[in-house]
Amino acid sequence: MAAPGSITLSAVRRVDAIEPFRVMQLLERARELEAAGRDVVHMEIGEPDFPSPAEAVAAARAALDRGESLYAPSTGLPALKAALSDWYRTTYGLSVDPERILVTPGASGAFLVLYLVLLEAGESVLMPDPGYPCQRHFVRLAGGEPVAVPVGPDSRYHLTPDDVTRHWRAGSRAAVVTSPGNPTGTVAPRDHLEALAASVAALGGRLISDEIYHGLTYGETLTACALELDPTAIVVNGFSKRWAMTGWRVGWMVVPEELVDPCRRVMQNIFIAAPTLSQHAALGALAAGDAVRAMCAAYDERRRYLLEALPELGFTVPVAPEGAFYVYAGAGGLADDTTAFCGRLLEEAGVALTPGADFGRYEARAHVRFSYATALERLREGVARIRAFLGS
Amino acid sequence: MAAPGSITLSAVRRVDAIEPFRVMQLLERARELEAAGRDVVHMEIGEPDFPSPAEAVAAARAALDRGESLYAPSTGLPALKAALSDWYRTTYGLSVDPERILVTPGASGAFLVLYLVLLEAGESVLMPDPGYPCQRHFVRLAGGEPVAVPVGPDSRYHLTPDDVTRHWRAGSRAAVVTSPGNPTGTVAPRDHLEALAASVAALGGRLISDEIYHGLTYGETLTACALELDPTAIVVNGFSKRWAMTGWRVGWMVVPEELVDPCRRVMQNIFIAAPTLSQHAALGALAAGDAVRAMCAAYDERRRYLLEALPELGFTVPVAPEGAFYVYAGAGGLADDTTAFCGRLLEEAGVALTPGADFGRYEARAHVRFSYATALERLREGVARIRAFLGS
Repeated sequence: MAAPGSITLSAVRRVDAIEPFRVMQLLERARELEAAGRDVVHMEIGEPDFPSPAEAVAAARAALDRGESLYAPSTGLPALKAALSDWYRTTYGLSVDPERILVTPGASGAFLVLYLVLLEAGESVLMPDPGYPCQRHFVRLAGGEPVAVPVGPDSRYHLTPDDVTRHWRAGSRAAVVTSPGNPTGTVAPRDHLEALAASVAALGGRLISDEIYHGLTYGETLTACALELDPTAIVVNGFSKRWAMTGWRVGWMVVPEELVDPCRRVMQNIFIAAPTLSQHAALGALAAGDAVRAMCAAYDERRRYLLEALPELGFTVPVAPEGAFYVYAGAGGLADDTTAFCGRLLEEAGVALTPGADFGRYEARAHVRFSYATALERLREGVARIRAFLGS
Repeated sequence: MAAPGSITLSAVRRVDAIEPFRVMQLLERARELEAAGRDVVHMEIGEPDFPSPAEAVAAARAALDRGESLYAPSTGLPALKAALSDWYRTTYGLSVDPERILVTPGASGAFLVLYLVLLEAGESVLMPDPGYPCQRHFVRLAGGEPVAVPVGPDSRYHLTPDDVTRHWRAGSRAAVVTSPGNPTGTVAPRDHLEALAASVAALGGRLISDEIYHGLTYGETLTACALELDPTAIVVNGFSKRWAMTGWRVGWMVVPEELVDPCRRVMQNIFIAAPTLSQHAALGALAAGDAVRAMCAAYDERRRYLLEALPELGFTVPVAPEGAFYVYAGAGGLADDTTAFCGRLLEEAGVALTPGADFGRYEARAHVRFSYATALERLREGVARIRAFLGS
């Protein structure tokens, strides 16, 4: 207790453990440069540059006309849960009880609830390094311990069954797979996912499958839903990426039946419900059907361009990404520390990239993430600027 | 660790500590009765029965037309933060730096972030019993300990400076005031609030002022913003009640400068941002000005009706509520246990009330909460049914 009068509240340890996103500082600096008249090529942002589907916007408009402004039920509009159940059938051939589908404020909301429900203080979750930075922060905020397991090109940057077995310890509860991955864009093949699920199940844990980039895959690449391979897996997904609906904040998770009630209790308290209008928009998006196809064609063209251009600049791309909108590139031959490199690239060349350090520690300072959620002509401009920067 | 093959995940202790809302079970049963053709008078629901302001809906439509579907900045649209800062000036004569205003997914989102930032494991927050049930659940989910302090009519159901001093202990970090209160609707007079703030500050803690029902007060009643009396107070508010915008999920908090960055870091991770479209709607609501006045007139008429009718039925209302849309009534002369009483009232008379047990333990089984977020003619019908039920 502080002495009377000396109020010395500081953020607590678990917040201290949350590193700030370097990319946010870069983005802020980029905005300053832009405000001062500089042009910046944004290859740092992980947000689709496409509008939300017209069907989603139309559904939102119709809901506004009907005056839909009350709370939705805490686990989501029944119509949306039913439509998502249908979507699992048509997309993966899976039969998923709508009651097991919980609609959340973005996929972020799903992870938060999940870790609050799954973890006692100090229990741990295995996850790949490099990986989505919020993943480890969710675990910490819930009082748990993230176990970052170094992954590399050999496993297409995914945890292997052997990784799970070697890093599992007393108090480990789950392992995470994100396929297509962030920052790597790589897809875990079906047999890999199946072996991974089996290894986690054998240890009495759960596989948590982050499927937020499903549907954004290129060429002949197919992504299996973890539920096809492990009916007890926990699946997190959302409308932000595949349907280009980031700002609406609607995601969902599919959980085993015994977790439905605990999750609902947490959701009732911390969210009350996901935004009602956004849930109607999401319903519209599901009816849109092919909305995703044109986006995928554009992403794929950009991806192929970068896979050609980056090696010519001196970056290495040991595994060609087949999904999401990222290329995780080695920059070891170009820079000692990519955090400093990204800073200079922004200041001197007007190109924003995300340094590897945002995604973990393992060889992080030798890597950068390129996002191609940016128009092809801007990517070309960015590549030209990097070429000039490196040649100077 | 479970044995291989025996997956025995159960909800963790902090979830077990979250009691289910009895009102939700009642509501569910009410829906069943309605589906079977029964008519139910809903005096249990704490949600405005008015549409969102036309200006809010128009602003949402305009944002849809402009294609506003991307993430908002993590602490809110700058225009909304500026408009809220203006609102503090015109409403309370307060100058609040927009940077200290953090826009959240509902007031719920604000409380969650706040307790994640403020509390180390086991640290405690003082709060009134009876009180808003989620308050203690937020604290528990953040790993803290809610300290429920019995409050009664003498203090208008608010914590007193003496309560704070007596219940404060090592590891106490904050005390909560909700004025107008839920479930009581009572307002803490300005001098009470001032003395309360001083008592918390003297102990080195923070006052957390839940102002979600501000603006919904009747007669000459005025509610002071805690920031008028204590510039270091933390204020939580939102658009759900005063502007009848529950389903949009937009709230905010005002925090001391040193908490802005820790809160932002948590918000970036767990929410990314509050829904963009809803933030535009909120901007419209702030411009609406008098939208709240017609609602208040209707609420006040209902309030005065209940304050007359309930004592005639045998309920006691020791403190006439001046705000929100609740009457917390003693039912000690009518029932031994209001949880059972509310169940029978629903089944036999078709009237839904919230039992006191949802709001805490102190004399909870001798109280019920009436919500008057229901049309006057329905309240009359409900009262008639209760009269018949009690007389039978």
